[in-house]
Amino acid sequence: MELTISQRMAAMQPSAIREIFKNMADPSIVPFAGGNPSPEAFPVKELQNISRIVFENNPVTALQYSVTEGYPQLREAAKQFANGREPGLSHPGDGIIITSGAQQAIDLAAKCLTDEGDTILCEDPSFIGALNAFRTCRVHLAGVPVEADGISLQGLEDAIKANPRAKLLYIIPNFQNPTGVTLSREKRQAVYDLCLRHGVAILEDNPYGDLRFSGSHVPAIKTLDTQGIVCYCGTFSKIISPGLRVGYAIAPQALLDKMVVAKQCSDVHTTVLSQIICCQFLQSCNMAGHLSTLQKLYRGKCSLMVQGMRQHMAKAEFTVPEGGFFLWCVLPKAVDPMAFVKAAGEAKVAVVPGSTFLPDETAPCTAVRLNFSAPSNQQITNGIERLGKVLDAFVR
Amino acid sequence: MELTISQRMAAMQPSAIREIFKNMADPSIVPFAGGNPSPEAFPVKELQNISRIVFENNPVTALQYSVTEGYPQLREAAKQFANGREPGLSHPGDGIIITSGAQQAIDLAAKCLTDEGDTILCEDPSFIGALNAFRTCRVHLAGVPVEADGISLQGLEDAIKANPRAKLLYIIPNFQNPTGVTLSREKRQAVYDLCLRHGVAILEDNPYGDLRFSGSHVPAIKTLDTQGIVCYCGTFSKIISPGLRVGYAIAPQALLDKMVVAKQCSDVHTTVLSQIICCQFLQSCNMAGHLSTLQKLYRGKCSLMVQGMRQHMAKAEFTVPEGGFFLWCVLPKAVDPMAFVKAAGEAKVAVVPGSTFLPDETAPCTAVRLNFSAPSNQQITNGIERLGKVLDAFVR
Repeated sequence: MELTISQRMAAMQPSAIREIFKNMADPSIVPFAGGNPSPEAFPVKELQNISRIVFENNPVTALQYSVTEGYPQLREAAKQFANGREPGLSHPGDGIIITSGAQQAIDLAAKCLTDEGDTILCEDPSFIGALNAFRTCRVHLAGVPVEADGISLQGLEDAIKANPRAKLLYIIPNFQNPTGVTLSREKRQAVYDLCLRHGVAILEDNPYGDLRFSGSHVPAIKTLDTQGIVCYCGTFSKIISPGLRVGYAIAPQALLDKMVVAKQCSDVHTTVLSQIICCQFLQSCNMAGHLSTLQKLYRGKCSLMVQGMRQHMAKAEFTVPEGGFFLWCVLPKAVDPMAFVKAAGEAKVAVVPGSTFLPDETAPCTAVRLNFSAPSNQQITNGIERLGKVLDAFVR
Repeated sequence: MELTISQRMAAMQPSAIREIFKNMADPSIVPFAGGNPSPEAFPVKELQNISRIVFENNPVTALQYSVTEGYPQLREAAKQFANGREPGLSHPGDGIIITSGAQQAIDLAAKCLTDEGDTILCEDPSFIGALNAFRTCRVHLAGVPVEADGISLQGLEDAIKANPRAKLLYIIPNFQNPTGVTLSREKRQAVYDLCLRHGVAILEDNPYGDLRFSGSHVPAIKTLDTQGIVCYCGTFSKIISPGLRVGYAIAPQALLDKMVVAKQCSDVHTTVLSQIICCQFLQSCNMAGHLSTLQKLYRGKCSLMVQGMRQHMAKAEFTVPEGGFFLWCVLPKAVDPMAFVKAAGEAKVAVVPGSTFLPDETAPCTAVRLNFSAPSNQQITNGIERLGKVLDAFVR
């Protein structure tokens, strides 16, 4: 007898990025493929100090089982933080749940809002972790093209009309992963109105919103949500630490009640030590100053990459993001993107082929995603230069 | 517009126990309802020390993203620990995955081995957290009666034959939750043979196996698994700390490969700080001595409860477990169990009605589950005495 894998999982493959990630320990490879925060960005001293105090003052709370909704003080602190960053985010009737990273918030929301055979609308390309979570729910993914100012409104309307079982739009309005594009203020309202009119809920994922380093703030779609159709996901992975696995969702309480039940089935609750550490950090740290430091760090890294691209990769088109971790590089049409990724790997530069991020991975895509948050400044400079040489060998 | 909850989650209710748990902060209530380890059992000093060292020596590893399979040194240490406790547990072709508690291992295994409409066989009664995870997979649950020496073999064979889409047996062989019963050595082989013959995979959940305080060790079903049909789940929740959320599964690699993909979609990876703390504890602590201390602690608490039951609850029947956290108390037939639970609550003793643990929650059940690990010795003595008075008021 052999174990038979379920249909829901049989076709699922490991994320190409998580696989590439396994090679990232090799220091000779320039890591443009991942999505890690810069190790320089971790507030090590503060977290070390907080951790010491937790074990001194409150060890049993940190080590015992806790409630599924999340450590109560963190729920309050996270809500205050999120509403401080996005005034008007929480509406009457909303609540908050602490999740094991925003990934879990996305997974739980999809489970609670869709059944097998339903359609989830998403940006095309979009975040692979979310797309894979949706795939395990056995839903149909309908991709909508992304323009320079975010998701195409016409494309969204067409997709809604073409998919009568469209239940949910998954969208990353700020410095989208993988394109780096930001949804304009006007389009946010239009997206909201369109979804409301057609009975489509919105899953707004905002992992990079606190890392804007140029341009001006555009309010979250959730702030426009007078009717209670938006589930907003945030995370401390990019601004405190991803290893701690602490994210959250702010949404109408009726949805959160079901997400709590789904979370009980998934992991009972998020690591309490992580939750207390994040809570104390939010309460005791100068968050404005901390975020400003991070924004400065990533502004510098992004500029360096853009500068290198202009010098060495002028044959490609690329986005210039106003925040976040990524830029999106469209190679000249003549270039076979998989051959390019392979050649880049041989030149010791890890990049991810754009097709990885497509709802339909078999569709043509000549882009690659470049990450500027994880590599050092020197790796960015050298890596882009090497990437330019690789491209030159393809396009003479 | 109102958000429409998916069919898969619409009928799901919060676990009665997790709800009761919310009241457990009230120190005047005797906590027989939960399943918490004793706070005295936490190795606070050691974990405090380990945590300090991690932040000193290895902060970036603890704070950064990690691989989904689990922190490599912990995977090795957990495998060694589990195989030391259960010689012959790992077979050639097996691997290990670190999960966010055993709950996640159960959830992932069910996702990877069953589709909507399949049947999962389970003990009747069984662990509510697992049953609820299965319910969100929209499978049919087929309960099999539990006898004094574990699951009924005839009942299992009947259930397999009655359910052609039976894909998986979920079973807790040691000090079962909620009954406290242990599956005999002979029955383990018979259960394995029966499942193998009928093409049913086995999900063996062993959260309490390290907490045997009387009788002698019975090897895990996984040790009998010559054909690769068993997924074995373990956890550090009961012997180190549940708040850290670290469990594991040992299973054929082909299954683990899919569980890794499912875990990527669920929470990317388990909190790294938790994983390193568990790893260092396994590597640096005298585990035999630590477990012996815990066994002694729980032997004392169990004896105290059994003694109280004999004195004050002689009108009820109850199991005398050889380990674990629970005993199962069957009330006289004349007693309305829900009225008893309510009256107990009014007498400030929290117990869980047995129906909570049934695959079919509407079936009749006159039992309650009693937890002896969390309450203090004094709470056990007082609580059982009070419970006896409550019962006396029902049965004169």
